[in-house]
Amino acid sequence: MYRSTEGGTAMTRSARLAAVAALAIVFAAGTAGRPASAQAPLTSGGPVSPALLEDLAAAYRILAMEGVIDAYGHVSVRHPGNPNRYLMSRSLGPALVTPADLMEYDLDSTPVDLKGRNSVLERFIHGEIYKARPDVMVVVHSHAPSVIPFSITQVPLRPVFHMATFLSVGVPVWDSRSVKDPAAAALLVRNGVMGRSLAAALGDKPVALLRGHGNVVVGPNLQITVRQAIYTEVNAKMLITALGLGGPVNYISAEEGAAVEKTPGDTARGWELWKRKALGQ
Amino acid sequence: MYRSTEGGTAMTRSARLAAVAALAIVFAAGTAGRPASAQAPLTSGGPVSPALLEDLAAAYRILAMEGVIDAYGHVSVRHPGNPNRYLMSRSLGPALVTPADLMEYDLDSTPVDLKGRNSVLERFIHGEIYKARPDVMVVVHSHAPSVIPFSITQVPLRPVFHMATFLSVGVPVWDSRSVKDPAAAALLVRNGVMGRSLAAALGDKPVALLRGHGNVVVGPNLQITVRQAIYTEVNAKMLITALGLGGPVNYISAEEGAAVEKTPGDTARGWELWKRKALGQ
Amino acid sequence: MYRSTEGGTAMTRSARLAAVAALAIVFAAGTAGRPASAQAPLTSGGPVSPALLEDLAAAYRILAMEGVIDAYGHVSVRHPGNPNRYLMSRSLGPALVTPADLMEYDLDSTPVDLKGRNSVLERFIHGEIYKARPDVMVVVHSHAPSVIPFSITQVPLRPVFHMATFLSVGVPVWDSRSVKDPAAAALLVRNGVMGRSLAAALGDKPVALLRGHGNVVVGPNLQITVRQAIYTEVNAKMLITALGLGGPVNYISAEEGAAVEKTPGDTARGWELWKRKALGQ
Amino acid sequence: MYRSTEGGTAMTRSARLAAVAALAIVFAAGTAGRPASAQAPLTSGGPVSPALLEDLAAAYRILAMEGVIDAYGHVSVRHPGNPNRYLMSRSLGPALVTPADLMEYDLDSTPVDLKGRNSVLERFIHGEIYKARPDVMVVVHSHAPSVIPFSITQVPLRPVFHMATFLSVGVPVWDSRSVKDPAAAALLVRNGVMGRSLAAALGDKPVALLRGHGNVVVGPNLQITVRQAIYTEVNAKMLITALGLGGPVNYISAEEGAAVEKTPGDTARGWELWKRKALGQ
Repeated sequence: MYRSTEGGTAMTRSARLAAVAALAIVFAAGTAGRPASAQAPLTSGGPVSPALLEDLAAAYRILAMEGVIDAYGHVSVRHPGNPNRYLMSRSLGPALVTPADLMEYDLDSTPVDLKGRNSVLERFIHGEIYKARPDVMVVVHSHAPSVIPFSITQVPLRPVFHMATFLSVGVPVWDSRSVKDPAAAALLVRNGVMGRSLAAALGDKPVALLRGHGNVVVGPNLQITVRQAIYTEVNAKMLITALGLGGPVNYISAEEGAAVEKTPGDTARGWELWKRKALGQ
Repeated sequence: MYRSTEGGTAMTRSARLAAVAALAIVFAAGTAGRPASAQAPLTSGGPVSPALLEDLAAAYRILAMEGVIDAYGHVSVRHPGNPNRYLMSRSLGPALVTPADLMEYDLDSTPVDLKGRNSVLERFIHGEIYKARPDVMVVVHSHAPSVIPFSITQVPLRPVFHMATFLSVGVPVWDSRSVKDPAAAALLVRNGVMGRSLAAALGDKPVALLRGHGNVVVGPNLQITVRQAIYTEVNAKMLITALGLGGPVNYISAEEGAAVEKTPGDTARGWELWKRKALGQ
Repeated sequence: MYRSTEGGTAMTRSARLAAVAALAIVFAAGTAGRPASAQAPLTSGGPVSPALLEDLAAAYRILAMEGVIDAYGHVSVRHPGNPNRYLMSRSLGPALVTPADLMEYDLDSTPVDLKGRNSVLERFIHGEIYKARPDVMVVVHSHAPSVIPFSITQVPLRPVFHMATFLSVGVPVWDSRSVKDPAAAALLVRNGVMGRSLAAALGDKPVALLRGHGNVVVGPNLQITVRQAIYTEVNAKMLITALGLGGPVNYISAEEGAAVEKTPGDTARGWELWKRKALGQ
Repeated sequence: MYRSTEGGTAMTRSARLAAVAALAIVFAAGTAGRPASAQAPLTSGGPVSPALLEDLAAAYRILAMEGVIDAYGHVSVRHPGNPNRYLMSRSLGPALVTPADLMEYDLDSTPVDLKGRNSVLERFIHGEIYKARPDVMVVVHSHAPSVIPFSITQVPLRPVFHMATFLSVGVPVWDSRSVKDPAAAALLVRNGVMGRSLAAALGDKPVALLRGHGNVVVGPNLQITVRQAIYTEVNAKMLITALGLGGPVNYISAEEGAAVEKTPGDTARGWELWKRKALGQ
């Protein structure tokens, strides 16, 4: 379903999934059950193209500019050279992120080389989703303000706008209180247990809501995933208004969602605009 | 009804309609039934004044600045020298458009000279409306966010604000699912069949809604049409609020709409302001 | 009730009202019944301090910056040297107004010296209110978007915020259709008949709504009147939200409104901030 | 509960509360019952670090930038060298405040050295809360627009967002009409009587609403309190939307609020971002 535009590989999806799964097994075997302090230093997934680092930093700024992430959101990209690594910013306001702020993590969300920087507390959202979803190359976590009301009511977030047809497969709502973990009461995804529970709730969907907290949007590359994060918020606003007008809402159907999925639009147009604006170019 | 301010011609409306119709017949006869690859190169409608190109590029930026079009909206102008041609931007974020990005199309929405650029997928909206409506000189397609809720509920978009009296003639809602075309399920107006269906739904009105998608606003020149696109969104916001307050809404009547139509306001004031702001002047 | 901060006079309100009334009678006697073309050239009220002109131009920009006036709002000041004259901008987008754009009118809204400029169509709002309300030194006309819904529903605009206690005396709603004039159907206040009807509806109040159109806010000087125009919009937004929450709304009472009227707040703080921001200082 | 990040002291909370209480007694004994004109000049609490002054000025600008305070809000910090003094800006629009505009007050809100400047009328909010709440180091007073509707309806402001869990202890609503004071009818907190009544209503909570007026947010340092002021507004917006969607709202529970209180998040990330943006860095 997803095709990566980063990394330039021509692998088919099934080949990539197999490769990811194989690597995941190898990596897991090497670290399972060992306390962090006893582990050998983590190896890096290798150098990453400056273009990808620039795009990842731009993604932070785009999502901030568009009102999707506040001071506390984050975006990550799976390492193009090693599916058991991912890249995300140190703890920093999204509008400030530059390529120099990007750090590398393994899928347990342990930094490869901390260098005295602060990691984001909720990085486990990213690592655990990458473990569970080999097809996912990008994870966005936000507190998008118009989406949160759908996480605290019984009203489902459904698509009403053709730019958000990806929501037609359903949007699960994850409640941190469902996790048996001491951290659960404090809502944040502060460890792997919480992250795995969230990833399980997400299942094979592109979007899941975190009750009273925010959402995650996952996808095959930065352009598509950032766009979906933006239009998840836009669609939520439109749906709120439509529901306020009353009467039956004419939702985008599952058939329409599937048809759009087969005929992708012009992703580059939005990305180029947002990136140039976000970087002040 | 409409008088063009572009092109400087003094033709009456009926004379212009006749000319447009005549040219349309000639042009249609020359290309009908031939596959695109077999066609002779399209001829250009001829040079266009730099002032019109600047105004069209400004229209993109104005509509972006005013929140009417997002990354994916577009505006076109019928070619002042040939009613069977129209001008619109290559696929580009509206806030980035300059005169150099403008391309020429025939009314089948085939580019006169592609020069390796990407055309907008939904350009057929423009071409088919120009075919069906000789009086229309400008077409705006947007995802104006407050208008979309009226396309997915049973609540009609009606005027409540004196700057939007043009809505008093009624606002049709077009549903892509009504078209018998393989592209219909994916919502976008990707071909002439879809575009013709939309143009038929628009009829002789200035505004039509595209269910779960956006709207089109058409008019006689850039100043009036851009203003109407802006106030369609503003009026939608006001109506949403008024409906939320409850009780009967005191709409602008058809009589008032007709009276305003006969006494045009000061279109230049808004245009000058918006253009200077949008171009940073 | 009102004290002017412009013009620097130390006249009491009653003395000023008497002077205004006397001048109004003289001026009316000189022009009544004569067609405009037969009139002697209008005399100017005399030079105006650059500080007042700068403040009036700033008022346009402040109200635009704060979202109170769109491209089509206007503000005027009664001439400090002649109560039968007032000053307002030529037809120009509010965010562009400079002191050089200000023109002088008599209370029939005839320009003292047109100099080829375009006057605002609805200047009669200003002239007729100055005739009817000698205590009024400033008039703002806007399409403030959150206020308009109260003009098209049966829900009264009442104060819920201590910065808008001036609304506690009541807010009349004027409907252009109530006027017996050929211009009435087109909603705009295009002549003295329409303006007088609006002024009569305003009565002795600080704010009146124009159904499906906008509002007028009048007051004793620019600082207070601009602030009241801003907080009329802010209060409307808060009231809309409160009504949406449901249940009884705890309005500001008439007693509270009267008490605030006697203990004016720090008007200068807001004005200084808004002016510096609006002028980019 | 609160730990100060300003002033650099390592005192435990109980030690600091004891020190504050002791100093408060000494200071009160020295001034009680004397009319202001008969008092000896107030002594300053001593020099304050430039970093704290810069942060306090930044707090004004951050809260203005985030739409929490309008032209008339204010923030104060208890003097780090003398708990009977506090620092806040002279009467000035928040977006204009610099360290040079900060003034020192005693807890009766008498300026230590007026130097011809204008004090904020409602400074008694700050002084009286510092008297009543030795644990409070920062006070924010705002007219945050989405919070006010909860002060004029029967709908309680409760947390629905994990960044606003501090609201789970309850949010009192204070009504100025409950005070037996001549100033009460005019709503503003213009003297110590009004301020003490408000402080009593606040009790041991972090947030209280002022009916038809605004709110106060108090806390242990600028970073936490400014963040709480911002997220009080954000949470109010989300709750308004959720209530509009209808059905039961899944609030953050008291248990969750308590759990979050024990596991503080990354306060520095937001502060750094907001400060850099607000200061244009």
